[in-house]
Amino acid sequence: MDKQMNEVAVIGAGSWGTALAMVLADNDKRVRLWGHKNEQIKEINENHTNEKYLKNVILPQNIIGYTHLKSALAGIDVMILAVPTKAIREVLKQIIQIECIPSTIVHVSKGIEPDTHLRITEMIEEELGNERKKDVVVLSGPSHAEEVSLRHPTTVTVSSKNMKAAELVQDLFMNQHFRVYTNPDTIGVEIGGALKNIIALAAGITDGLGYGDNAKAALITRGLAEIARLGTKMGANPLTFSGLTGIGDLIVTCTSVHSRNWRAGNMLGKGHKLEEVLESMGMVVEGVRTTKAAYQLAKKYEVKMPITEALYAVLFSNVEAKEAVDLLMARVKTQEMEDLFNILEKKV
Amino acid sequence: MDKQMNEVAVIGAGSWGTALAMVLADNDKRVRLWGHKNEQIKEINENHTNEKYLKNVILPQNIIGYTHLKSALAGIDVMILAVPTKAIREVLKQIIQIECIPSTIVHVSKGIEPDTHLRITEMIEEELGNERKKDVVVLSGPSHAEEVSLRHPTTVTVSSKNMKAAELVQDLFMNQHFRVYTNPDTIGVEIGGALKNIIALAAGITDGLGYGDNAKAALITRGLAEIARLGTKMGANPLTFSGLTGIGDLIVTCTSVHSRNWRAGNMLGKGHKLEEVLESMGMVVEGVRTTKAAYQLAKKYEVKMPITEALYAVLFSNVEAKEAVDLLMARVKTQEMEDLFNILEKKV
Repeated sequence: MDKQMNEVAVIGAGSWGTALAMVLADNDKRVRLWGHKNEQIKEINENHTNEKYLKNVILPQNIIGYTHLKSALAGIDVMILAVPTKAIREVLKQIIQIECIPSTIVHVSKGIEPDTHLRITEMIEEELGNERKKDVVVLSGPSHAEEVSLRHPTTVTVSSKNMKAAELVQDLFMNQHFRVYTNPDTIGVEIGGALKNIIALAAGITDGLGYGDNAKAALITRGLAEIARLGTKMGANPLTFSGLTGIGDLIVTCTSVHSRNWRAGNMLGKGHKLEEVLESMGMVVEGVRTTKAAYQLAKKYEVKMPITEALYAVLFSNVEAKEAVDLLMARVKTQEMEDLFNILEKKV
Repeated sequence: MDKQMNEVAVIGAGSWGTALAMVLADNDKRVRLWGHKNEQIKEINENHTNEKYLKNVILPQNIIGYTHLKSALAGIDVMILAVPTKAIREVLKQIIQIECIPSTIVHVSKGIEPDTHLRITEMIEEELGNERKKDVVVLSGPSHAEEVSLRHPTTVTVSSKNMKAAELVQDLFMNQHFRVYTNPDTIGVEIGGALKNIIALAAGITDGLGYGDNAKAALITRGLAEIARLGTKMGANPLTFSGLTGIGDLIVTCTSVHSRNWRAGNMLGKGHKLEEVLESMGMVVEGVRTTKAAYQLAKKYEVKMPITEALYAVLFSNVEAKEAVDLLMARVKTQEMEDLFNILEKKV
């Protein structure tokens, strides 16, 4: 590896960006961690902490904070893009303007763009325009940032159209605590990460209704099946949904009470109205937005998504949560494999 | 449906047998619930309770307790066999001897017979001998008995060589709270139910070691992959492992602190020795037995099962739990899909 590969930029100094910067620093990379808040970057450089985002964690000395985007990216080959989904286009525009686009762009966000229904990789490619020869890589999987910063065992998947780029990113991050798999199916990796929030919201609802583990396990399993149905129609490999970015991420999100989507669902299950819930959360509940997008995509691709449809009815048509669950249970009897075979319509 | 179909026998009055009897009773069947303890059957018939096995639950009046096996089975077409795995052969021998074998035998147990490595259906067929024209059906899925008795939403799968028999059982049990799917893949349904206990034990260990949700999600995901690898070699359809009896049951078992296997693993993770753990549990830890069986099956079928092997080393070769997990994380880098594609070696 040449000199530049020893230096990597992480754009975005939130909890996930900082935790990933720590993994790279543990692997003896010099890490340029960019954020736009002066105070925060000063704290990173002077105290080696980022207290608001990772409590009680000391950052390695080879993480250097930057507020100046051009300095952070000068001479850099690999950039990790760890800004919120809704800021991605704006940050990319700035990077294109200062003509500092690294040859490999790794994004670590989850979601589907409202209205356009684009995956994050597609959004990035659209922004890059003539710069499309750059490699875009997605890194995703079951990973609370706090646990990564504590060096607890974590596994993730990287994917790209160019598998050489994915392997380069695998080499950058892989270490004793942080295990990186590759998977050529970018569509499946991104769809799994985005749509899991729908099921997390629904899991919160059944918990809020006081239903038990049986109901939640059924919901996660059947939820995975409908995500796989839609994803496969969109071009994904159905097997990806059985992997880390599918069932793995779904389990972490649905069984952790720290998940924002689960908490929102829990309140809905307890009888609160959507407006109340959103107000009391005081921040974006990604699953609400994603439910709308998935509902529209299901119509477009003519895919049956009973859980998504039931959740849509609860969120946007004032159907009672309990009534929606009862309707789900009352559907006609089915052969489990019918669904699963349908997933394989498009053979792997 | 003829007269007899309105009467069903449940052999075994533990928590699962009793909960299933309640589902059938809710569906207006007369249920003959057999157990060998006089006091317990008296309690069922006089108080309509089975307090030791289902606390604070009132049984429907159309569940009638029996201690006499021949009376319980006289004129019965469908029998639910809900005795512990290790009692199945013995109970079947009695039933054959009294010449009261119903035409449909539904078993609801999970496990692999030690030494013979037979699935439960195979054990039953072996015992039936010349009576092999009888239909054997398995009912399995993510289902705590307590929740079923509270009529919380639950979904299960039934499977049989004769799908007509499976559909008959589906019709018997299906109701508003208890949703029944069919799946023709009996091998996959039984292997998933049996091997999940290995992963539950391992999940307890990582929790006991203080590792977090990321590690557990990875373990469940990768665990499912290796169960699917072995199951597929044994003749299962790989897709079954993505269903209720695969990932669904795995989630319930690995995330519930009530699971005996999880609790045993938790103690191991905290540094206790296997003998201590087994002694303090005071009952069979199915996952320990299953780990040995799966380890031997993996050798026989030449399948890589790194989690099973690591657990085997902890249980039977005095390897420290932490060392085993660290070794798992340090394996050579892999392409996630390699594993998954290998599962599809045997095409569906």
